[in-house]
Amino acid sequence: MITSPSSRRRSERSRKATLEAALGLCAEKGYARVTVEAIAARAGVSKKTIYRWWPSKGAVMLEAFTEGLLDATPFTDTGDIAADLRTHICAAVRLLSTSPFGPAYAGILSEVHHDDALAKAVREDLVEPRFACAVERLRRAGEQGQIPADADLPLAVEMLYGPVYYRHVLRKPPQDEATVAALVEHVLRSLGARET
Amino acid sequence: MITSPSSRRRSERSRKATLEAALGLCAEKGYARVTVEAIAARAGVSKKTIYRWWPSKGAVMLEAFTEGLLDATPFTDTGDIAADLRTHICAAVRLLSTSPFGPAYAGILSEVHHDDALAKAVREDLVEPRFACAVERLRRAGEQGQIPADADLPLAVEMLYGPVYYRHVLRKPPQDEATVAALVEHVLRSLGARET
Repeated sequence: MITSPSSRRRSERSRKATLEAALGLCAEKGYARVTVEAIAARAGVSKKTIYRWWPSKGAVMLEAFTEGLLDATPFTDTGDIAADLRTHICAAVRLLSTSPFGPAYAGILSEVHHDDALAKAVREDLVEPRFACAVERLRRAGEQGQIPADADLPLAVEMLYGPVYYRHVLRKPPQDEATVAALVEHVLRSLGARET
Repeated sequence: MITSPSSRRRSERSRKATLEAALGLCAEKGYARVTVEAIAARAGVSKKTIYRWWPSKGAVMLEAFTEGLLDATPFTDTGDIAADLRTHICAAVRLLSTSPFGPAYAGILSEVHHDDALAKAVREDLVEPRFACAVERLRRAGEQGQIPADADLPLAVEMLYGPVYYRHVLRKPPQDEATVAALVEHVLRSLGARET
């Protein structure tokens, strides 16, 4: 099939409009009250178009949230693993504690427990790739001699992300910068990192 | 008001029947499909009786889950903080990875994001008391010289519970005993505990 440049542009425009509409409605009405109909109406696309690209409202929200997360929480490598983890975790906490991304992710997670397809998509499209990036950043810190070569990196990543999820799903006040700094320091010490 | 012993006994019997019915229905139908009507019918009590004691289905489930959690995950003090934390966390992981308690808690958490009253009840009736018990157990370990006196105990508890919540809400495979042991060892090391 030959797709003209203009039709491809239109598709990307519709995709972006759909994601933006989903996040906007989530901020205004709360995740539970958003419908695919309302997203389609605000985005100026048909409901059929949405269902051609996404299996559910949750899947639309997941793509919108994932794009926001990728933009907001890059993995930098300044050569200082503690500083880079603080930057990364602080950005994730900020994203999760502000609208529309925080409520959108809470809504997505609320559907994970009963929607098997969405649960799989959350793990495969969002959680596992980010987890792998975090492990990779720690692996480079190991190469640079900042943490021991045999450190348990997946465990470290769960110790970093776990407390962020804990507060988010329980709607406890999010970590402030000092708490994130203490968390990162503790996780690095738990791996046997050189004290700085 | 004078309450006769028999009416008090009847009330406790109804309460227990209600909690049991809620958990049973959750295991059979999935949390989302359970209604207060169905709980009342199975427990042999009126819907009005349930609403006199609990504001919502979520509140019934929370009380049922909390009783199960208290039974299954006591805080022991054998004098060995690492062993006691392993026992405690393993029991929590087991409870969360089996029916009816695991699905019940996933269902409760799925409502926390949009039900302010339930969110408050989860924090005040379940999470905060358990959190305080965990801090208290670590404080005694400090007194016994197993961890430094100035250790950041609330941070340690979040590092222990966080990864358990992380896997539970994402429906990742639960931690096995070796992973729990590694987690406890890392958290204690992060506090500057004596290596054993």
